Amino acid sequence: MPNSPETTVAAVEAAHAAGDLGLERAPDIIVALNARPPEAAAEILQHLSSEKAVEVLDQPGIDNVCEIIAALPTATAVALLSAVSADRTADIFRELIEPLRTTLLNGLNQETRTTVSELLAYPERSAGSIMTTEFVSVRSNWTIAEVLHHIRMVERTRETVYSIFVVDPVKKTLIQAVPLRRLISGDPHANVLTAAPARKPLTVGPQSDRMDAARLISKYDLLAVAVVDGLGHVLGIVTVDDVIDAIVQESTEDVQKFGGMEALDEPYLRISFLEMIKKRGGWLCALFLSEMLTASAMQTFQGELEKAIVLTLFIPLIMSSGGNSGSQATSLLIRALALHELRLRDWWRVAVRELPTGLMLGAILGLIGIVRITVWQTLGIFDYGEHWILVAITVGTTLVGIVTFGSLAGSMLPFILQRVGFDPASASAPFVATLVDVTGLVIYFGVAALILRGTLL
Amino acid sequence: MPNSPETTVAAVEAAHAAGDLGLERAPDIIVALNARPPEAAAEILQHLSSEKAVEVLDQPGIDNVCEIIAALPTATAVALLSAVSADRTADIFRELIEPLRTTLLNGLNQETRTTVSELLAYPERSAGSIMTTEFVSVRSNWTIAEVLHHIRMVERTRETVYSIFVVDPVKKTLIQAVPLRRLISGDPHANVLTAAPARKPLTVGPQSDRMDAARLISKYDLLAVAVVDGLGHVLGIVTVDDVIDAIVQESTEDVQKFGGMEALDEPYLRISFLEMIKKRGGWLCALFLSEMLTASAMQTFQGELEKAIVLTLFIPLIMSSGGNSGSQATSLLIRALALHELRLRDWWRVAVRELPTGLMLGAILGLIGIVRITVWQTLGIFDYGEHWILVAITVGTTLVGIVTFGSLAGSMLPFILQRVGFDPASASAPFVATLVDVTGLVIYFGVAALILRGTLL
Repeated sequence: MPNSPETTVAAVEAAHAAGDLGLERAPDIIVALNARPPEAAAEILQHLSSEKAVEVLDQPGIDNVCEIIAALPTATAVALLSAVSADRTADIFRELIEPLRTTLLNGLNQETRTTVSELLAYPERSAGSIMTTEFVSVRSNWTIAEVLHHIRMVERTRETVYSIFVVDPVKKTLIQAVPLRRLISGDPHANVLTAAPARKPLTVGPQSDRMDAARLISKYDLLAVAVVDGLGHVLGIVTVDDVIDAIVQESTEDVQKFGGMEALDEPYLRISFLEMIKKRGGWLCALFLSEMLTASAMQTFQGELEKAIVLTLFIPLIMSSGGNSGSQATSLLIRALALHELRLRDWWRVAVRELPTGLMLGAILGLIGIVRITVWQTLGIFDYGEHWILVAITVGTTLVGIVTFGSLAGSMLPFILQRVGFDPASASAPFVATLVDVTGLVIYFGVAALILRGTLL
Repeated sequence: MPNSPETTVAAVEAAHAAGDLGLERAPDIIVALNARPPEAAAEILQHLSSEKAVEVLDQPGIDNVCEIIAALPTATAVALLSAVSADRTADIFRELIEPLRTTLLNGLNQETRTTVSELLAYPERSAGSIMTTEFVSVRSNWTIAEVLHHIRMVERTRETVYSIFVVDPVKKTLIQAVPLRRLISGDPHANVLTAAPARKPLTVGPQSDRMDAARLISKYDLLAVAVVDGLGHVLGIVTVDDVIDAIVQESTEDVQKFGGMEALDEPYLRISFLEMIKKRGGWLCALFLSEMLTASAMQTFQGELEKAIVLTLFIPLIMSSGGNSGSQATSLLIRALALHELRLRDWWRVAVRELPTGLMLGAILGLIGIVRITVWQTLGIFDYGEHWILVAITVGTTLVGIVTFGSLAGSMLPFILQRVGFDPASASAPFVATLVDVTGLVIYFGVAALILRGTLL
């Protein structure tokens, strides 16, 4: 392609931008790339030193990485992807679309291609999918001096050298994980295992959830955890920085799901309009269709409504109180289950706590409700009719019932979802509110029928 | 105190338990301690080797740490607290109550007491409050060999030796942070700064929010970040494991606040009944009192309600749709603000996105609503009266309005809260729902007045 004046200008600008950016840290360069269209970002990437470009691609957080790679000459893309760490290369390949994916994969050398293909085969969100294969592995018959020498040789090509994995020289199975700090203060002539802790290393399987690796790293303050196959061979390691990214991503998804939508997977301002409608519209429609049951319930009670219009005044108040108490309970349980503070079998302990909590909270709200009706009636602000005392008692009693039901339903829903194999975090605030709304109406009109029979009804 | 048979039996049991537990990892011992009453836990702690007991106390996650320390002999408590890392000692002192706090603080030696008192003076959730003072600091005129020798000497007493902080030999100001991995592969006779990266180290101030330290560590994949005073002296470091704990804790609090309650600060099963009522009851009452405005709004429209009872049937459906769309928008914005994807000044970009999104989602729900009424009417499932077409149009139009309002209000509320100095995460799903409910009724009856005037109203 001949150089048109525009492409020359663009290239000069890009080189200029790259010259400035080359001095920045990789995560800051990414911020700059994300602010530009993919073609401009690709242009900048080409003008960075190859070392810097690799450092940039080695970081997560590049938007439109697929388009940026597509805009690079194939040879450049292959060269960069070969130099990036294998776990990150696999991440990038996950976002690439065909035929680019196959073209670039075939461009990699045999060894890298095999590693990347293996990583790509692990299910999304598994420990295998976020592990790196660039770790330090040494034989158990080496001395500390030999291990340190080996680390000096491979340091530049390993994601971390602070956890060293000691394997059996023959069977290649994992024997120990030794922290570098113990090695450098150990006797150089002693065997590497003299610097090892007394206990077996903690490991995860490649198919385990990545959050299992996160929990181990967080609980035991590790820098990395080994991913080990059924025979005890180390396939890779999950490092603490990958785990932080995973924890932050899962928290974001949990909040979004709790808000009653599908997780966005992308920053708010990046997602397309249609994608946004899809992520929010699905749940909104499902909730709307379920909530239609309230209209059906109201239709059933139409006779009561006509006789006692005064009852309708409190419908929003009563329903929202049930939803609010349910939302509180659900938020507590979602986190307790996510943090493994509670297990499925603990459901009854929760029920035993939520029942008195709900009754107490309901009693407080019920009392406020009764006081409010009494004050308004007595001060003449509004006339609830001659049976206002009975109306107040109906509203108060209903509040006890609905807040208790809300607390119980809201706390049990995450357990039920987990039991039937769903993510307990799908128990969103709107989901619980919808569940409680229909029941709330039934409770309200049931209580009213009992208390107001013979007077208003 | 003479040994009664019971205390002897208890002591033997505790020793036995300690004998078993002594082989476990500290976080696992904590699980066992948490399952026992504080006195039994203290008994076990005393029977562990002092090295192991220190390792246990060095970990976060011990419930009732105040009661456990109180149950120890004062001399033992002082000895253990002196050996635990200073940041963790400060954490424990934060939970102790008087007079035990002062007694134990006075028991510490002068140096430890000063360090702990300084750490206690930093505000909660600041970088200063979670930093450790046990880091490796070396002078910039040392060689790499001298630094490595120093690390070997102090390794056992430092929380991490993987980030080494190089200071000016005279002014003691921070010059560089050098990773250990670069030192061990560097030339031993060269100056330590030859192993340093090209850029100035990243630092935070002691008063900064701990999440600022978390963001730096997470963005730049660091193992530790230096906490530096105004003169450039290193006060301490925040390590990656403290940051993970902070991230997990803040996520839990965000979900609980989003659920419409105060953050619990303790595991679900640990919190007392009264504390639980307090944390949930406050917001529940506040929301209930605000939601009372719906009753007032309904009272205003009582005339309309009596004329057109059919309108009441759709009140729950309409209000919940507004709340749900608001909850979705709020969950998106809370996370986007927490992750610094958006800043306060970006509010208008969000408004510009939420307006068409809300209109589109509202149109979808409105259409479903109209179809539902038409189908029920046509199939004879329910009779919405002779003006059913107008009722359907009223419901459909209201849904467009309320979902749009919900999306806008839900997305703007976190910005408004942040603007006036509150935590944007206080914009809970129930808060938004309550906000939208009152407006929703006004929109509904406003639309009804326009469309049904002269027919039903």
